[in-house]
Amino acid sequence: MAAVKVFCPAISTASIRVILCLEEVGAEYERVNIDMATGEHKSPAHVAKNPFGQVPAFQDGDLVLFELRAIGRYVLRKFKASDVDLLHGSSLEESAMIDVWLEVEAQQYDKAIGPIFYQAVIIPRFYGGTTDEKVVEENLVKLAKVLDVYEARLSQTKYLAGDFFSFADLSHYPVTHFAIKIPQVAALFDARPHVKAWWESLESRPASKKVPAGLPQ
Amino acid sequence: MAAVKVFCPAISTASIRVILCLEEVGAEYERVNIDMATGEHKSPAHVAKNPFGQVPAFQDGDLVLFELRAIGRYVLRKFKASDVDLLHGSSLEESAMIDVWLEVEAQQYDKAIGPIFYQAVIIPRFYGGTTDEKVVEENLVKLAKVLDVYEARLSQTKYLAGDFFSFADLSHYPVTHFAIKIPQVAALFDARPHVKAWWESLESRPASKKVPAGLPQ
Ligand SMILES: N[C@@H](CCC(=O)N[C@@H](CS)C(=O)NCC(=O)O)C(=O)O
Ligand SMILES: N[C@@H](CCC(=O)N[C@@H](CS)C(=O)NCC(=O)O)C(=O)O
Repeated sequence: MAAVKVFCPAISTASIRVILCLEEVGAEYERVNIDMATGEHKSPAHVAKNPFGQVPAFQDGDLVLFELRAIGRYVLRKFKASDVDLLHGSSLEESAMIDVWLEVEAQQYDKAIGPIFYQAVIIPRFYGGTTDEKVVEENLVKLAKVLDVYEARLSQTKYLAGDFFSFADLSHYPVTHFAIKIPQVAALFDARPHVKAWWESLESRPASKKVPAGLPQ
Repeated sequence: MAAVKVFCPAISTASIRVILCLEEVGAEYERVNIDMATGEHKSPAHVAKNPFGQVPAFQDGDLVLFELRAIGRYVLRKFKASDVDLLHGSSLEESAMIDVWLEVEAQQYDKAIGPIFYQAVIIPRFYGGTTDEKVVEENLVKLAKVLDVYEARLSQTKYLAGDFFSFADLSHYPVTHFAIKIPQVAALFDARPHVKAWWESLESRPASKKVPAGLPQ
């Protein structure tokens, strides 16, 4: 079986999520570099794979996919094993709870931590711009409220969807891995013992060790 | 079997999506009204169902769900029949394409049409405010680009995920049903024959007829 291919730069939070899925299930894969600095993600070859000209794109034989959350689901379904099934597709209730917390990640968590990360890290580091502190402040307040919900949830179950690690937990890893280096973000995690223990358990997973520690220079 | 319950106001685009799923699969359900005008969505009873204090929430016996896309998946899986399976769970490739276009709806389409609808309809009608025309203009440009991708796709396949109607198509219905009454939005659809034919096929579905024609006064 030919290895599947992921088309993406070495480091992008979007792409890391796909790589983590592949690592968790132990799939063979090839990463094909896309050089965003030269606009390669807008080249006809890449746009043929992702019509929105974004990374990542994914290929498995004739099947070409884009949108990281859709790619992740495919990888987890295709390579699932009896002891590795991060979507719990055989249980209606468990897979529903995974879907709920995946949506919470996309609709609540990412919408708060994303702008903080972008303003505090990406803008000064990659665009030579100045952080908009007002945006950071507003989103720290939002993130605190989201994490209050997580703290309540994680005091009942070990992971978000239940007492099992799932795609919902994994999906939080990429942006948090980088954003938690921002002191105000770290403080929000430190103040919530169950959230903090959950985060430590995510960080200690073997697959997580494959994610580069820092952003590119 | 007791009917499942949907907790939501009579009309909200978020809730209509769940209702459409239930209508498509022919499930029995009960709608429990949540009066957002009096802040009922922030009441302890509702927050116990949706910790973010939003609508819709959903209950099936002991299982309580929130986040409309997660509820939709659950409904479509639980009530699927041999001739009604809007997630195509038995085909790895077809379900992957459904996931791709579901994500496109959330990440690309909704992010363009959502702000147009909010500015042009919701703000003047429900908040007595003035439409920010700049936001509308910017998002019409975005929406046009997204619909160009749809036009190309729909000239190859009858529906977004393939030659079959799926949850991906259905998910576009609620906001479009109202937003297409905005003349500039209608013009974008009219200018793209495959998009227009696709939209007409969605509108003519029996389940779509259950959606109220207008917004509440
Ligand atoms: N909705 C897309 C978003 C992916 C995304 O935002 N990719 C960024 C890099 S992290 C990108 O390609 N940006 C370039 C662009 O949007 O033109 C997904 O879920 O895959
Ligand atoms: N991410 C939620 C969003 C639902 C949503 O936006 N609901 C709106 C009504 S259409 C709401 O409850 N707004 C009140 C609030 O956010 O406080 C979902 O997918 O279910």
